[in-house]
Amino acid sequence: MPIITLTTDFGNDDPFDGVMKGVILNISPDVKIVDLTHNVLPQDIYQANFLLSACYHYFPEGTIHVCVVDPGVGSQRKPVLIQTKKYFFIGPDNGLFTSVLEKEEIVNVVELTEKKYWLSNVSQTFHGRDIFAPVAAHLTKGVAVNDFGKQINRSDLVKLKINKPIKTDNGYKGIIQYIDHFGNLITNISSELINGKVKGKLKNHYFQDLVSSFAEAKNNTLTAIKGSSGYLELFVYKGNAQMFADLNVGDEVEIALI
Amino acid sequence: MPIITLTTDFGNDDPFDGVMKGVILNISPDVKIVDLTHNVLPQDIYQANFLLSACYHYFPEGTIHVCVVDPGVGSQRKPVLIQTKKYFFIGPDNGLFTSVLEKEEIVNVVELTEKKYWLSNVSQTFHGRDIFAPVAAHLTKGVAVNDFGKQINRSDLVKLKINKPIKTDNGYKGIIQYIDHFGNLITNISSELINGKVKGKLKNHYFQDLVSSFAEAKNNTLTAIKGSSGYLELFVYKGNAQMFADLNVGDEVEIALI
Amino acid sequence: MPIITLTTDFGNDDPFDGVMKGVILNISPDVKIVDLTHNVLPQDIYQANFLLSACYHYFPEGTIHVCVVDPGVGSQRKPVLIQTKKYFFIGPDNGLFTSVLEKEEIVNVVELTEKKYWLSNVSQTFHGRDIFAPVAAHLTKGVAVNDFGKQINRSDLVKLKINKPIKTDNGYKGIIQYIDHFGNLITNISSELINGKVKGKLKNHYFQDLVSSFAEAKNNTLTAIKGSSGYLELFVYKGNAQMFADLNVGDEVEIALI
Repeated sequence: MPIITLTTDFGNDDPFDGVMKGVILNISPDVKIVDLTHNVLPQDIYQANFLLSACYHYFPEGTIHVCVVDPGVGSQRKPVLIQTKKYFFIGPDNGLFTSVLEKEEIVNVVELTEKKYWLSNVSQTFHGRDIFAPVAAHLTKGVAVNDFGKQINRSDLVKLKINKPIKTDNGYKGIIQYIDHFGNLITNISSELINGKVKGKLKNHYFQDLVSSFAEAKNNTLTAIKGSSGYLELFVYKGNAQMFADLNVGDEVEIALI
Repeated sequence: MPIITLTTDFGNDDPFDGVMKGVILNISPDVKIVDLTHNVLPQDIYQANFLLSACYHYFPEGTIHVCVVDPGVGSQRKPVLIQTKKYFFIGPDNGLFTSVLEKEEIVNVVELTEKKYWLSNVSQTFHGRDIFAPVAAHLTKGVAVNDFGKQINRSDLVKLKINKPIKTDNGYKGIIQYIDHFGNLITNISSELINGKVKGKLKNHYFQDLVSSFAEAKNNTLTAIKGSSGYLELFVYKGNAQMFADLNVGDEVEIALI
Repeated sequence: MPIITLTTDFGNDDPFDGVMKGVILNISPDVKIVDLTHNVLPQDIYQANFLLSACYHYFPEGTIHVCVVDPGVGSQRKPVLIQTKKYFFIGPDNGLFTSVLEKEEIVNVVELTEKKYWLSNVSQTFHGRDIFAPVAAHLTKGVAVNDFGKQINRSDLVKLKINKPIKTDNGYKGIIQYIDHFGNLITNISSELINGKVKGKLKNHYFQDLVSSFAEAKNNTLTAIKGSSGYLELFVYKGNAQMFADLNVGDEVEIALI
């Protein structure tokens, strides 16, 4: 039985995700629903794009990833269903799937226009419940992708401009692209670019070395590690690097390979 | 297989809801359990009543809604099971189901007294785990409603006094009844009462117009929209209306239909 | 179908637990996954030990409890699988299971060394995803416990030093071992030690009596009750005892039996 994942900025206080699950189970009682996270920063499409692209491929082939971070809900932005070789992605066409689609082979893209697969009353503010959840549920029941609407070109999908690291004489210049719950700072510099050791600078903070486990680091010291999402991370052992160094997403980081 | 939903004020820090799921699965291994929310404000029966009545009907017929916001746990307040034409509701008899029962056709109401369907050791502080979860689980296994205890009259159920909007010369006077994670202010004025445009006042803030999508609103402007839960909402586009205007649940709102 | 529970300090903001679920379902599509909590305080092994030991036994026999609070991830600390007569426990060998193992009959302990049951790329920072989740999933598919690695002695497992209450002339001296979402203060004094009434002192606050339901207590008064996790608790009715009395985990409590 297929899996539907949910990624939203609804938070954990309101029952918005619970209602989406009710809608899905009403149509497709046996589906498995997994929360990826509901705590994307409100309306932060860039963060949703990063988190989704870091996680989607851990799920079985055929998984339907529904992502609802949707500041343009009810406006002219298109609701879309994207079929790739291995997965399905459903959500607003606002760039949420930019990084995923750099990695996946697209098979089909459909603008959701066929209202018989939506709830009968569609609000102007909650398409997660009224359009995306029921479409995902009907997809698990065998409705063909093309039945949900009209095919559109891949090139018509909205794309975010994602900040990529820049090669320097002796290393790379990048940014902090995400900060996790532990205060670890995830850069946009891929771990694959790094062989051997590094030293670097993050705003006015310097760091040296590249440890291979958190426990190898000195206390109270900003330290680099190849993180679990495939990027160079900066952390403070048994501490919180964000609070330690007062840093934020978007701050510049520069490394030298040594 | 029936679905059990959970609505509580337990928060997401403690494993209280996880334990309820263990108890349920121990009795009924195949049931689906869906969290509606565990972040009802502590002991806020009115908020739970609102959230439950806004959500329960999105679930399939036969769904068992367990709601545990229970300041009177262990006292004389009754534990109840309410069967309506389409659903079951289980929780303390403290008014939690007031708004639901205005909409649903009641079939049977039972006070939970039959201890063989409870955990063998019942604490005085956690009936969610010790009474409500096991009763919900046994209900999915085919135990008849009347076997859980003694029938009581619908009229004996505790009812909350719910604030309703008042008709004025040219519109309605109501209150903010809920504020969501985005800071959107949900009034108690039903969208069905509104045809055409509105203007209004919320404490010392004025608003005009009624947009049909968030994106139609001007920035930094308190704006009205027909919200997804069926009530007039006030929001600030790409902002947080609660913080913008320093408003709270219970604040008065007045609208004129124009 | 077996159940896998997850207890971590990952929080609800990041999709770390969601990714673990993807990994599990990729290997074992029919398993049920239950979140116990993801809000253990970051790297607080003692809190995880307490919460797990208060909850694990509410789940059906055969349940696999995965616990990932793992400050030593990537260092020499062992990843382990512990089989008891009724359950399985999977996580880092850092003392997380200390209190559970005082209560359960151990059958087998294995250090996880067999890499064919891990993800093919193991990070140095996220063994929850790369080792513990796939091992739990393979266990549900019938892989024998001894196939996951090499047997080790129970006595080689790391044990936490857990603070136990001390008998005094007329009662017990203990500590606050946990504070829940409602601000209730859970001591380490087992309710079984108490017959009749108590009076006591918590730092500079005095309390008297032992009520049998929250609603019996006076307002604005620190009051004792036998709590749902089997320990004496202190609470303030319709209030928050932690905020009322500015107390913390580790604070000393002394009771006299009267």
